[in-house]
Amino acid sequence: MGLENGSITIGVIGGGQLARMMVPPAIHLGLRISVLAEAEGSSAARAADAVGDYRDAATVHAFADTVDVITFDHEHVPSFILRELEERGVQVHPRPDALQYAQDKILMREKLEELGVPVPDWAAVADEAELQSFLDAHGGRGVVKTARGGYDGKGVRVVSSAVEAQDWFTALDEDGHGGRLLVEELVDFTRELSQLVARRPSGEMRTWPVVETIQRDGVCAEVLAPAPVQNPATLEEAARIGTAVAEGVGVTGVLAVEMFEAADGRVLVNELAMRPHNSGHFSIEGSVTSQFEQHLRAVADLPLGDTTMTAPAAVMVNVLGGPAEGPMPVRYAEALAAHPRAKFHSYDKQPRPGRKVGHVTVTGDDLAEVRAQAVAAAAVFD
Amino acid sequence: MGLENGSITIGVIGGGQLARMMVPPAIHLGLRISVLAEAEGSSAARAADAVGDYRDAATVHAFADTVDVITFDHEHVPSFILRELEERGVQVHPRPDALQYAQDKILMREKLEELGVPVPDWAAVADEAELQSFLDAHGGRGVVKTARGGYDGKGVRVVSSAVEAQDWFTALDEDGHGGRLLVEELVDFTRELSQLVARRPSGEMRTWPVVETIQRDGVCAEVLAPAPVQNPATLEEAARIGTAVAEGVGVTGVLAVEMFEAADGRVLVNELAMRPHNSGHFSIEGSVTSQFEQHLRAVADLPLGDTTMTAPAAVMVNVLGGPAEGPMPVRYAEALAAHPRAKFHSYDKQPRPGRKVGHVTVTGDDLAEVRAQAVAAAAVFD
Repeated sequence: MGLENGSITIGVIGGGQLARMMVPPAIHLGLRISVLAEAEGSSAARAADAVGDYRDAATVHAFADTVDVITFDHEHVPSFILRELEERGVQVHPRPDALQYAQDKILMREKLEELGVPVPDWAAVADEAELQSFLDAHGGRGVVKTARGGYDGKGVRVVSSAVEAQDWFTALDEDGHGGRLLVEELVDFTRELSQLVARRPSGEMRTWPVVETIQRDGVCAEVLAPAPVQNPATLEEAARIGTAVAEGVGVTGVLAVEMFEAADGRVLVNELAMRPHNSGHFSIEGSVTSQFEQHLRAVADLPLGDTTMTAPAAVMVNVLGGPAEGPMPVRYAEALAAHPRAKFHSYDKQPRPGRKVGHVTVTGDDLAEVRAQAVAAAAVFD
Repeated sequence: MGLENGSITIGVIGGGQLARMMVPPAIHLGLRISVLAEAEGSSAARAADAVGDYRDAATVHAFADTVDVITFDHEHVPSFILRELEERGVQVHPRPDALQYAQDKILMREKLEELGVPVPDWAAVADEAELQSFLDAHGGRGVVKTARGGYDGKGVRVVSSAVEAQDWFTALDEDGHGGRLLVEELVDFTRELSQLVARRPSGEMRTWPVVETIQRDGVCAEVLAPAPVQNPATLEEAARIGTAVAEGVGVTGVLAVEMFEAADGRVLVNELAMRPHNSGHFSIEGSVTSQFEQHLRAVADLPLGDTTMTAPAAVMVNVLGGPAEGPMPVRYAEALAAHPRAKFHSYDKQPRPGRKVGHVTVTGDDLAEVRAQAVAAAAVFD
C-alpha cells in the first residue's frame, strides 16, 4: 500500500518544531519529507537534508529541485523567491498569492475587509502624526504591529502615545521601502479563539472544532479544545469566518485564523497563519487526523482526513524554556512518572527563557479535569 | 523540556516496520533513534544510520558503540553477540537471558512449564520416530515447529505423519548442532488472544487490554481490541499469564504473549515475542500510550505511560502486498478519500504476495462497525 512506486517528497522550508512534528505522520502515510533547516542542530534536524538560508534564492531553488512540493515551517520566505519557483513549475503550497496575507499584516487586513470578514478597526500609518490621530479617535490607546516579521508577541506593542512607536518608524525610514505600521483598536475581549482549516488545491476543506487560546506575555500558553464558549452562535460565526478566509485567500494546507470573542459579542479576526499552528497541537492526540497529517495530505493533494475529536476534551499546554532547576532528564522522568496520561512532546531545543521547547497534551472527558492535568504536567518544567 | 542535555540514543537492530514505527514516538519524546538495517531501502531507512549484517559480531559491536542502549526490530541476533555486548557494559533490552526464550521455542516451552504457565502438550523431538510417537499419543496429528528462526507462519507445519517433517530433520542433521524440533498438540480453540505487557528494568509493568488476533494462512490478518470474549475469567487469566511470563522471564521492553482460548475453556500460551508486535499496532491510535512509545520508554528506563484505550473499540487490519491492480498511489488516494476516519500506515515496502506492507486502524464506539470500516479500508489494496 502507499506511495512506494512514485512516493511524494515534501520539502519543508524551516527546521523548527512544526517541521519536526510533520515527520511522524509522514512516516505513517508513506510520504517522504525533506527539510531545509536554518542551521545544524535544528528541531527538525533528523529530517534535514539541507541547511541554508531561506532568504537566498539559489539555496531555495536548489532545495526545490530535490522535492515534489514545497511547504513551510514559517512564513518568512521572501515572496519573490516563491514566485520564481512557481514560474519554474515548482508546486508551492500555500501558494505565494495566498501566503502574502500571512506575510504582511496590512495586506491581510485589506483582504479581510474585501472579503467582508469582521476585523478590529485598523489603519496603516506612515508616521507618528497618523498614528496619534488613530489613537485619539480610539480612546487614546491602540495596538501597533509591524506589518512583517512578527511572531509570538514580537512586533506587537500596546501604546497610548505615538511616540512609543518612534523606533519602529525610524527603522522603516532606514529600510528605505517607505513602509507603514498597522494600528488597531484595543479590543475588549472575553477570550481568544482559533479556527483551524485545511484546504486542498482542489478546494476540499476540513475544519477542526473551534478552540480557545490563552496567551501569556503575547505567547500562546494553553489551548482548550473545544472552546468552552456558551453561545453556539459564536462558534458558528468563528467557523464561518475560518472557511470564508480559507476560500477567500485560496490557501492550501493548514490555515489558522486567530480571533477575538469581543465583550460586545462580535467575533473579530486577529491574525492568520498559513501552516500548522500552536493552536492545533492538541490535534495530534485530540483529533482523528492531526493538523500535521492534514497539512501533508493537503499540500500533497491527497484526500483529507476526518477531524472529529477523539475525546470530549483536549488541552495543550506549552512548555517554555526557563532557568532549569535540576537536570532536565531528571525532571523529565519525574514528569513522565507523575503524569502517565499526559503526552509529552519535546522539540529537542536548548532551553532559553520564554522559548517554546515542548508541549504537553491531555485528552479526556472533562475539560476542567483535563486542563488541570495538562497544567500540572507542564509545570514540572517551570 | 526533554532530554536535550544528555539525550538517550536508542539503537535498534533491524530495519523493518517495527523499527520504522518507533521513530514517531522517539521524535515526540525527544529520544534519538538509530537503526542497524539489513539493507539500503529498508522500511526504517529514514532512521538507518548503519547498514550491515546483524549476525556479524564486529558490525553489531561497532553499532553499539554509537548508541546508549540496544533493542530490536526482530529476535534473530545471535545470543553470543548480545552476551558479548553485555560483558562490554552495553545496555541491551530485552537482555539476552530473557530474549533466548523468544529465540528458541523449546527453551520457551521449558521455561513456561517451570513458571507453571499453561501450554499445549508438547515435546522436543530429535527424529521421526519420536515425532510419530507424540502424534500417535495425540490423535495422530500435531503442530511441528522449528525451534529457531520462524515468523509469520514460517517454520510451523500441521502434520498427520512424521514423514511430513523429514526435510526439517534432515536440515537439523546437516546443521550439525543436533537440534530438535518442537511438536505440540493441535489445540481446538475458540479464538486466539494476545496480551501485550511492557516492563522496565526496574520491574515496573503496564499491560494493554487483551486483544483477539485473527490469522489467515498463519499470518496475522486482523486484531480486535478489546477481545470480544464473553467470559471475564478468560481475560483475567490471559492478563495473569501475560504478567507472569513478563516477570518470569525478566523481559524489558514490550512482550507479546500469544494465547489460545481453547474450546474447553483453558487459556494456553502459543508464542512469545519480545518487541513491539503486530497484535499491538492498534495501540498507535487506540491507546493513550502506544506499544512503540512504551517500548522506547521501557528500554530507556523511563517511566511507563498509561495504556487505557482511547475509544471503546479499535480494529487493525493488515495490508498484505499482492498483485496490484492499478497504480498504488491511485488506489491509496481512493482509500483515503473513501475512509476519512481510517488511519493508514505504510511500511514503504515493495509489494510482494503475502508481504505485510502496511496496516489500517479504525477506532470508535462499536466493535462490529469499527471492524467493518477497517476491513473495507484495507480491502482497497486487495
